[in-house]
Amino acid sequence: MAEMNRQWRLVRRPAQTVTPDCFEWVECPLEPLAEGQVRVRNLWLSLDPYMRGRMDEARSYAPPQALGAVMQGGTAGEVVESRSPDFKAGDEVVGLLGWQTFANVSGRELRRIDTRRIPMQAWLGAVGMPGVTAWFGINDILSPQRGQTLVVSAASGAVGSVVGQLARAKGARVIGIAGGEEKCRIVVSEFGFDACVDYKAGNLAVDLDRALNGARIDRLFENVGGACLDACLARMNAFGRIAVCGLISGYNGEAIPLANVRSILVNRLHVQGFIVSDHMDRWAPALAELAELAASGKLRWRETIAEGLERAPEAFIGLLKGRNLGKQLVRI
Amino acid sequence: MAEMNRQWRLVRRPAQTVTPDCFEWVECPLEPLAEGQVRVRNLWLSLDPYMRGRMDEARSYAPPQALGAVMQGGTAGEVVESRSPDFKAGDEVVGLLGWQTFANVSGRELRRIDTRRIPMQAWLGAVGMPGVTAWFGINDILSPQRGQTLVVSAASGAVGSVVGQLARAKGARVIGIAGGEEKCRIVVSEFGFDACVDYKAGNLAVDLDRALNGARIDRLFENVGGACLDACLARMNAFGRIAVCGLISGYNGEAIPLANVRSILVNRLHVQGFIVSDHMDRWAPALAELAELAASGKLRWRETIAEGLERAPEAFIGLLKGRNLGKQLVRI
Repeated sequence: MAEMNRQWRLVRRPAQTVTPDCFEWVECPLEPLAEGQVRVRNLWLSLDPYMRGRMDEARSYAPPQALGAVMQGGTAGEVVESRSPDFKAGDEVVGLLGWQTFANVSGRELRRIDTRRIPMQAWLGAVGMPGVTAWFGINDILSPQRGQTLVVSAASGAVGSVVGQLARAKGARVIGIAGGEEKCRIVVSEFGFDACVDYKAGNLAVDLDRALNGARIDRLFENVGGACLDACLARMNAFGRIAVCGLISGYNGEAIPLANVRSILVNRLHVQGFIVSDHMDRWAPALAELAELAASGKLRWRETIAEGLERAPEAFIGLLKGRNLGKQLVRI
Repeated sequence: MAEMNRQWRLVRRPAQTVTPDCFEWVECPLEPLAEGQVRVRNLWLSLDPYMRGRMDEARSYAPPQALGAVMQGGTAGEVVESRSPDFKAGDEVVGLLGWQTFANVSGRELRRIDTRRIPMQAWLGAVGMPGVTAWFGINDILSPQRGQTLVVSAASGAVGSVVGQLARAKGARVIGIAGGEEKCRIVVSEFGFDACVDYKAGNLAVDLDRALNGARIDRLFENVGGACLDACLARMNAFGRIAVCGLISGYNGEAIPLANVRSILVNRLHVQGFIVSDHMDRWAPALAELAELAASGKLRWRETIAEGLERAPEAFIGLLKGRNLGKQLVRI
């Protein structure tokens, strides 16, 4: 019997929150491989908050995911068959091959990875898109200086954990914001942040003030938005900078009441939204540096792994609710 | 009988809105002139929205106005007596001499003005701090390009009217937002904007869409905040820029619910708060260009004049409510 491809397709746009019936499980025969194409068996699927935006029809930086199509997403895997001169069976690669077990793609859509010193799935995390996002925000937008105070929200996540480690290496004092005691503990003990504030403890303002210990925020790497952003706005230093990387709490379309917008004026803030895929010329230097840090053990990360592609929707819904710790992956 | 100085002093911080009893009228004898000082008779007082911020105790970019002290403010006038080698009686000057008829100041705090081609009070408006604010925002932050769409709020005001004229000279299509039919008419017919939206008409979103005519906003010069800012955020173009110059609607401390903060991320916006007094090195080139434009009739402005220093509080309260058209002045 011929091997089948298994896929998750988007069949319904979320009304507000994502529910399992937005996705449909499909099994279908593998398509024949065209000249120049490579067949990849996906071994790891990356789940990322940006996917939530693609599920809506609203105008965004990327076109919405089409209904009926395979869910988009970053993947790592191995070449099982090649009609491209650039790849051969057994090559290990990353690409945007989606929530499925196999994909036929042009060789141009793949990047070869080296798993001898860095595990395959890390090329989707600390040494992948989330890592490059952190690196770009730190190096090209925030540029924290020695002695400055940097705050990063979603601090235990795939992006936030790298942000804090890179900023500390530049001599900044780094405060994380994360949801829950365990996450905060790991942010300090494993990722080496100077402090971490648990926003779920219910005393965000007081706890943030305690962590700041009289300082104000010079640099903010914003992954969340909403109440965390508002609390940080009120504590920004003059001429501070904010890199806006994610606004999870607005993904369901609700208005975000910000009481401290005036800080942008009073503190002459520089606020910069960014999407790392706008800056493809920065990926090579970012990945080179991140790979070296990862291989030498200087860059650390955590993973939450869902076992089996079947579990992808459930794991994605958990990610949006902050249930993961570190990079959310699916082992296919 | 010796001539008296007349002053408005701040005696009460506003609970929320500014009321006349925040100010106290004081008459007192002129103080003797010290060596190196200049005595100036103030002829014009500039009223500006930033003064509202100074009346509060909250942390801001400048220390709060002290209770019991003369209200701060920009002034134009003439030297009546000088013990400084740099000034003589009859010299025309601008300075920050406050809400009073006379002031003794060091010569270093004064700037000489030339009223042969530009009326004295314009050195407080289009060729003064508001004009330099507009010039800095356009040249150093927004840098609008030919064919781009620029929106400016408080478009008939001292800053907004100059913003639009400078942007049009650079080839941008310029849309103003102002409160009331008359202001909008003048913004188009006198200041030459391409369109102006009356936010008081109650259809801001629809009217802004009509003025945009299918385009999105590349550059926003924000003088107001609140609903205007929110409507513009929703209509920003990718890689747009926002210069945040004023947030009047937050001056009374209320939270501003912004539904469209996510646009900062989706459109990778660059948002920059600024205060023109941070950039003293840019005043000379700005004033030189603005003076030439004003003297040659290429730069136009409107004034609302309150007659007599006695009327300053009433005029200031009117300014905060948007009752003025163009630059709000007091003829002392």
